[in-house]
Amino acid sequence: MLEKVDLTKSMDKTEYKAKMQMLKIRLGELQRQCKIQNIPLIILFEGFGASGKGVQIGKLIQSLDPRGFKVFTIKEETKEEQMHPFLWRFWKKTPERGRIAFFDGSWYRRVLIDRFDGKIKKKDLSDAYQSICSFEKQLTDDGCVMIKLLLNISKEEQKKRLKKLEDSKETAWRVTKGDHERNERYGEYVQMMEEMLQITDTDYAPWSIIEAMDRKFATVKIYTVVIKALEECLEKSRKDKVREKAAEALAELSTEDITTTETYKADTDEKKLQESILAKVDLNLSLDREAYKKQLKKLQNKIEILHSEVYRRKIPVVLCFEGWDAGGKGGAIKRLTEKMDPRGFVVNPTASPNDIEKAHHYLWRFWCAMPKKGHVAIFDRTWYGRVMVERIEGFCTKQEWQRAYKEINDMEKDLSDAGAVVLKFWMQIDKAEQERRFTARQENPEKQWKITEEDWRNREKWDQYEEAVNEMLIRTSTENAPWIVVEGNDKYYARIKVLETVISSIEQRITN
Amino acid sequence: MLEKVDLTKSMDKTEYKAKMQMLKIRLGELQRQCKIQNIPLIILFEGFGASGKGVQIGKLIQSLDPRGFKVFTIKEETKEEQMHPFLWRFWKKTPERGRIAFFDGSWYRRVLIDRFDGKIKKKDLSDAYQSICSFEKQLTDDGCVMIKLLLNISKEEQKKRLKKLEDSKETAWRVTKGDHERNERYGEYVQMMEEMLQITDTDYAPWSIIEAMDRKFATVKIYTVVIKALEECLEKSRKDKVREKAAEALAELSTEDITTTETYKADTDEKKLQESILAKVDLNLSLDREAYKKQLKKLQNKIEILHSEVYRRKIPVVLCFEGWDAGGKGGAIKRLTEKMDPRGFVVNPTASPNDIEKAHHYLWRFWCAMPKKGHVAIFDRTWYGRVMVERIEGFCTKQEWQRAYKEINDMEKDLSDAGAVVLKFWMQIDKAEQERRFTARQENPEKQWKITEEDWRNREKWDQYEEAVNEMLIRTSTENAPWIVVEGNDKYYARIKVLETVISSIEQRITN
Repeated sequence: MLEKVDLTKSMDKTEYKAKMQMLKIRLGELQRQCKIQNIPLIILFEGFGASGKGVQIGKLIQSLDPRGFKVFTIKEETKEEQMHPFLWRFWKKTPERGRIAFFDGSWYRRVLIDRFDGKIKKKDLSDAYQSICSFEKQLTDDGCVMIKLLLNISKEEQKKRLKKLEDSKETAWRVTKGDHERNERYGEYVQMMEEMLQITDTDYAPWSIIEAMDRKFATVKIYTVVIKALEECLEKSRKDKVREKAAEALAELSTEDITTTETYKADTDEKKLQESILAKVDLNLSLDREAYKKQLKKLQNKIEILHSEVYRRKIPVVLCFEGWDAGGKGGAIKRLTEKMDPRGFVVNPTASPNDIEKAHHYLWRFWCAMPKKGHVAIFDRTWYGRVMVERIEGFCTKQEWQRAYKEINDMEKDLSDAGAVVLKFWMQIDKAEQERRFTARQENPEKQWKITEEDWRNREKWDQYEEAVNEMLIRTSTENAPWIVVEGNDKYYARIKVLETVISSIEQRITN
Repeated sequence: MLEKVDLTKSMDKTEYKAKMQMLKIRLGELQRQCKIQNIPLIILFEGFGASGKGVQIGKLIQSLDPRGFKVFTIKEETKEEQMHPFLWRFWKKTPERGRIAFFDGSWYRRVLIDRFDGKIKKKDLSDAYQSICSFEKQLTDDGCVMIKLLLNISKEEQKKRLKKLEDSKETAWRVTKGDHERNERYGEYVQMMEEMLQITDTDYAPWSIIEAMDRKFATVKIYTVVIKALEECLEKSRKDKVREKAAEALAELSTEDITTTETYKADTDEKKLQESILAKVDLNLSLDREAYKKQLKKLQNKIEILHSEVYRRKIPVVLCFEGWDAGGKGGAIKRLTEKMDPRGFVVNPTASPNDIEKAHHYLWRFWCAMPKKGHVAIFDRTWYGRVMVERIEGFCTKQEWQRAYKEINDMEKDLSDAGAVVLKFWMQIDKAEQERRFTARQENPEKQWKITEEDWRNREKWDQYEEAVNEMLIRTSTENAPWIVVEGNDKYYARIKVLETVISSIEQRITN
């Protein structure tokens, strides 16, 4: 793409001033509309060193309400960031609905500068591209508008600009050795950009190339590109709303005409055909108290040692707990962590999302909580809410939860690519056992708080949940992030199984 | 995913009969509705050898109108197929709108059996996955419903079935050495399947896993899965139509309310900001008749030799010609091919699509015309119609042409991955030159047929075309399939440039 770009473009001052006056007003107007419509926006700047990314961001934000945006400058990873998957720092920075995030440099650093510097292996490169495409698709599927600007200058121009920066005491520090190297091997760097463009110029997140030799020309072009993108997304959002409303209205009117005339009733006995992992679980498995106590002690000692081993070897560990209400998640987590060093693990309880969390992608809050290398993150309920409670209660659309299986698999692959041990436990009990536990809780004053009206309501939807869980277990049990179904009617048995599984998985990782 | 599947499921005869009676009626009904709604359908069967793929296809088609489907059995590539990109044989088999294609085996052969047999390299594997995902996305984006069934049996069961087949004279031939090997290294094969599932279980083309130990159970489950998928897509299609109609109606009513109240006029001088490859082209370049004749002879001799070299080395060559009406495409193609061996090249003229072509994906007719190894395919107008005439005349939606850049880049990457030289020529002339040529054609009785009313009408849309062409040149000029803009006001110069470019590109490939 780049070799076709005309770098001679420029604009004189009078024209610039006239245009900018109008463009600035328009951009401010559109920002306000996006805010009202709750549309999140990412504007990222990539391009050669000294191509003017910082200056252009400065020009752009002049027209914006400062409460509505944040600017992030992406340099080398900090130590903290190095200890996470490479997308982690970007996930954390994704904007809330209605707000704008500017990126001076971005996740493309991984496939440009890091690659140029020989910091990533070939296998990692194709993983990185896959992760980037998946990341951008997830955000834009969720309604985010992504504007990707590539600022383009010639080799000679870059050289001149670098020299100018270095000639002044105030700016010399901004030029790095890397800048010079990329200037010297300009052709090589361009080729990496070309590959990047080919893989990541998608319909949902297209690139715009900005001829950046003349600053004024570039500013006007950037404003124009951004304005056009915002106008299009507002128009689309408006149309979608009209469509939805109209469809609802019409659907009410016309249901009679459209149902099939021939007689066919959906097979009510469909359950038999479904994946039935849960039905197969042997809930009679149990352990007596004596054996339990003995084993528990042994395993807890072992996990204490392993935990420090995990820390020394810098292995991140992600342990997920899902299961029926009163299925024994809390008890299992308690036994698992009792002897662990509290500085090395965190238990993240997952409740319904708060307002800030709701204003982000549903995976955002979980990304933020992912452990750094050597640490253990335990999730008491997880992102799988998307394909269980959100699916069943209609908190998201069918499209959204169907898309989620792949989104979740991709996220867990990113974790595992970054070296993490990922285990997911499903605590299984039967309906009768749940009732016993609910009743016991209600009768115990210390545990009454644990049981609510909602728990009883959820219980009525047991069959729907069972269908959803079975599908979830099938679609998201992967080699790198397997589901372990825990036979939970007997708490002793369940807790020991969890401990044993965690231990053996970590041991396996360590000996590999 | 697979380790979670319960292979013990079965169904007795009475239940089977009762269910099947209903399911068969329903499936037939749905096929007719899909036909009316013009929905194309792909049902593919993958899974272990002897898992019953053939039998199950047989069961399924019993309920279908035989004029509405085709069954394809995918074995090793034929010699002809080996000489094309691996997806080529599948592209050719994609169904027309309203029809069904069954695949017993599929494109997944490449990442399963071929991989197992060590026939593809690691780099090719990740390319293959990329191509498969892109292929499935393109078809489903185009309205095709894709049902992917994975038939699952245990290692022991497979062994038993293979033995049974071998014990009978009539069926022994169906068991291959490969079947045995995959049975022996069952675990390894399963792992490849797991990876496949993880990468290709998407929301647009999800996998369904069929427990195939019991034939009756599997049949009922397959019917149920297919019926559910068809019901969903018909429902979606219905809703989309309601939505569109409603939106149209409402849009007419409500345009006044929704336009922005603040005063802003779109920058009419936007052209200046656009990519302007065409504006830069130096149309004064020319060649005198003497020099032309001399060079033409030399170059044509060279291409004759190169053409046979291309054949010997089995290099496929794809040459695309686009340009303004009367831009000189025909003349250039004529000079290029004059001395070439007619058995080794084909010129594909591209007119507006006929009815059969319209009933397929827009890329289908071009895929079918792709050259085999050692052959040259020349396209006089191409798939780029999607982002030029179809864009401008509104023959496709904005979403569709915006998606097309990536679809086209992906297709050309598939060609190039398969070893092809791909060159794309844009024959550039200016508006005045076009008028001279149009008039000259009209005045020449032998050339009058070449000029129509439509040519004059298109000419009025020059500016729109220029914008579209500039965007196309930027977005789709890639290293493996570059655009060459040919300065065409002087025909002699243009023809020589085309010849020289073809020669130097092929020479470069040969010496590499």
